[in-house]
Amino acid sequence: MAKTNPGRFFEDYRLGEVIAHAVPRTVSGGERALYHALYPARHALASSDEFARACGLPVSPMDDLITFHTVFGKTVPDISLNAVANLGYAEGRFLAPVYPGDTLRSESEVIGLKQNSNGKSGVVYVRTTGRNQDNQSVLEYVRWVMVRKGNLDAPAPDTTIPELADVVSPDDLVLPEGLDFTGYDFALAGEPHRWGDYTVGERIDHVDGVTIEEAEHMLATRLWQNTAKVHFDATFRPDGRRLIYGGHVISMARALSFNGLANASMIVGLNGGAHANPCFAGDTIKAWTEVLGKAETSAPGVGALRLRLVATKGAPFELKGEDGKYLPDVLLDLDYWALVPV
Amino acid sequence: MAKTNPGRFFEDYRLGEVIAHAVPRTVSGGERALYHALYPARHALASSDEFARACGLPVSPMDDLITFHTVFGKTVPDISLNAVANLGYAEGRFLAPVYPGDTLRSESEVIGLKQNSNGKSGVVYVRTTGRNQDNQSVLEYVRWVMVRKGNLDAPAPDTTIPELADVVSPDDLVLPEGLDFTGYDFALAGEPHRWGDYTVGERIDHVDGVTIEEAEHMLATRLWQNTAKVHFDATFRPDGRRLIYGGHVISMARALSFNGLANASMIVGLNGGAHANPCFAGDTIKAWTEVLGKAETSAPGVGALRLRLVATKGAPFELKGEDGKYLPDVLLDLDYWALVPV
Amino acid sequence: MAKTNPGRFFEDYRLGEVIAHAVPRTVSGGERALYHALYPARHALASSDEFARACGLPVSPMDDLITFHTVFGKTVPDISLNAVANLGYAEGRFLAPVYPGDTLRSESEVIGLKQNSNGKSGVVYVRTTGRNQDNQSVLEYVRWVMVRKGNLDAPAPDTTIPELADVVSPDDLVLPEGLDFTGYDFALAGEPHRWGDYTVGERIDHVDGVTIEEAEHMLATRLWQNTAKVHFDATFRPDGRRLIYGGHVISMARALSFNGLANASMIVGLNGGAHANPCFAGDTIKAWTEVLGKAETSAPGVGALRLRLVATKGAPFELKGEDGKYLPDVLLDLDYWALVPV
Repeated sequence: MAKTNPGRFFEDYRLGEVIAHAVPRTVSGGERALYHALYPARHALASSDEFARACGLPVSPMDDLITFHTVFGKTVPDISLNAVANLGYAEGRFLAPVYPGDTLRSESEVIGLKQNSNGKSGVVYVRTTGRNQDNQSVLEYVRWVMVRKGNLDAPAPDTTIPELADVVSPDDLVLPEGLDFTGYDFALAGEPHRWGDYTVGERIDHVDGVTIEEAEHMLATRLWQNTAKVHFDATFRPDGRRLIYGGHVISMARALSFNGLANASMIVGLNGGAHANPCFAGDTIKAWTEVLGKAETSAPGVGALRLRLVATKGAPFELKGEDGKYLPDVLLDLDYWALVPV
Repeated sequence: MAKTNPGRFFEDYRLGEVIAHAVPRTVSGGERALYHALYPARHALASSDEFARACGLPVSPMDDLITFHTVFGKTVPDISLNAVANLGYAEGRFLAPVYPGDTLRSESEVIGLKQNSNGKSGVVYVRTTGRNQDNQSVLEYVRWVMVRKGNLDAPAPDTTIPELADVVSPDDLVLPEGLDFTGYDFALAGEPHRWGDYTVGERIDHVDGVTIEEAEHMLATRLWQNTAKVHFDATFRPDGRRLIYGGHVISMARALSFNGLANASMIVGLNGGAHANPCFAGDTIKAWTEVLGKAETSAPGVGALRLRLVATKGAPFELKGEDGKYLPDVLLDLDYWALVPV
Repeated sequence: MAKTNPGRFFEDYRLGEVIAHAVPRTVSGGERALYHALYPARHALASSDEFARACGLPVSPMDDLITFHTVFGKTVPDISLNAVANLGYAEGRFLAPVYPGDTLRSESEVIGLKQNSNGKSGVVYVRTTGRNQDNQSVLEYVRWVMVRKGNLDAPAPDTTIPELADVVSPDDLVLPEGLDFTGYDFALAGEPHRWGDYTVGERIDHVDGVTIEEAEHMLATRLWQNTAKVHFDATFRPDGRRLIYGGHVISMARALSFNGLANASMIVGLNGGAHANPCFAGDTIKAWTEVLGKAETSAPGVGALRLRLVATKGAPFELKGEDGKYLPDVLLDLDYWALVPV
């Protein structure tokens, strides 16, 4: 039994250590096809080689969230196997597109530690980097999780809370080399709305809904080699329910947001995010978006929108109660930067 | 909310207009593998590169119905989002094989319009063409749907009902360039039955059955980027049931028909089709076929069979009641041309 | 109806005959991605092209069990469509890795026949060989099944029971050409345990569990073109339950065994196996392993472990009752050779 991985406990993390995560993964058209089967994903750039070439890329890149899930999944056995909660994301940047045939691996640096006052758990902050076979960084983001202590007598580490930006500065966004939206085909992409058509404060109800099935969220979560047993084993929780991987909700909401944001073609920044409430099979997920900001970029024809994407089981545009807490129907509150033709 | 696609209503269509449908799609071995996982598809030509080469093709083509679903799925946001019913198909022809790496897009021409006498809806006839990255047509077919009016006061258009052939003439069938069945390996294909072994009027019970799951039909329908919410959102219909995409039934029945028609290797024509009754998760689909016609072709060793493929929840060979209406267990009545070694 | 395949009955087999199984199959990154979605498979060698190259292979091979299921699935219409029970496996050897783009086919030689004393069924022994497009053998194994007689009056054949080895001798194991574990990266692979760290008699509880869904086992079983209707048709068995393909349990248990056996990188031998009890949707599968043997190999840095892999719905390390029969919770008892870095 000593040979299985019990996961790390709070006292096992050291500030500054770098953890190389296991199981590199080569992605292909198989992962792309499955992504399209699991989510109603229709952004043309991640669907058509021809469309991507017309936008200056060599072939169609993998959906940005395939990159996110693949990089994230590798961190689970080292970071969140004993996590009580996934508390937040910050400073996420997509640094290079991932193409079929690329091989991804991940590493995380521990950048913050804070034991909780109850002495039973603590918060671990990591900066995770995904790299391809050329050692090029494709994604980095900060995540913090609450992790149980394995030995309650282990001494508390010095408290270090990293300073994290509330939002990734538009100047720090990295655009794919060669990206050019001057010849962007709005008819093929599915909607006529340009960067200039969106205004800060505007809210969009994405209208469509998807009812979630056990088989689907498990297929998705395994695809990213995410091993947290709470997603797979109906006997694990006392209530007999399998908790759905938060990333499944992110991808579902992002795909649903096509209807109204078809031209928000690529995700380049992840400013923050909260899994507001747990999601279970049988829930019907809908999504709405609020435009939080706009920025120009140096790439021809390319603007950036800062978007709040909310996944909900309830009515659109409802988020928090008078107590400042998320309403029970809200599943996800995600703040990201996307590229849009001007 | 103005940014989301409400779909077109009957009064939004103009005779002769050509609608370019959104979201081109590059297909790969991923779509093929998923097709084999979703359906018991075993036709050797669409399964093995070696087998396809022995039949004169460069590599194994995608199953013809992958082409159909991909082309069809793109039309949904423009044609059938507000459809009350999918009424029929005609004059369908597969014009060129689709191979892994090809990129498909669709366009539809409005070829007929007829407002219903109740003034609340009308019938729209479109001829849809699927094209690959070389602008080569890979599929065309006529479909007609009943679409709601959005504005009941909109004036009725002049009635135009296109003249449609009852059956695609064998002379108009297009065979893949180079196709040659003279070296066809019947043992590898799975059955010894040749074109000459089938007689007009013959009926075949395909014996096997598949019980349908929610997760499966949603995976399939999303894979084709078909966005009609009635397939995905359990809260959409008053009865809380998700209606299964008719194309899922077509593919299931076609795959089941392997048992008895293993050598009906390629679909080249779609003469007509009716989704006789709705299908829901939990239904067990079986299939039977009636041979409707036979034709020779100009390709070496290749004959054509005209086949009626019926999907049913009930007993084989039952189709319509004394009133001429489909019996309640019948799900699909499809009339197509397939290529068979002579 | 004469055109459908009724399957062979016991009296249809002749000692020494070789049956070429139908429907060759080209595999790609699509099958690999689906395998990762269906099972929590994480062995680095079958996940990353880079990792595989560092171990001396040209690219990442398909998971060995993809090869097994693909070869096995083709035999079903000829061998086990009328099988009452799948009785055992022996003398299984993986003879060459399968890579994306390879095309597989199968053939089986009847090597034994024994009619049961009740006269209603008999045992058929076959040696099945899977071959790739270069006619190279990739897998061979012996399987024996109990098959019903179709005609109870058919005479019993002479009884021939093949002599089968209890275990594949380590000297007979075939290692992939070029395989070299001297530069094996244990951190990327996920665990530090080497061949020398495992001792005969050691038992490992793999800890994790997966609850099985109907949609998932059907996707898997169809992916291998396995057509036995008992897996798909809920109306087939009197109890309305679909029996899960035994190979689904094998793959699930093998993938779960990563946790503790992450470096058991490749399966090269299959000594024996029993599907101890039927598995149904809703069951939660867990796995444990006992180390049965160890052997050196001629490849640099490569050792072999003989492992008993048990899939169970119950507690680890429980196998048989006092009567020598498998306990009701035990689903699978598999005896195999895997390659491990020394």
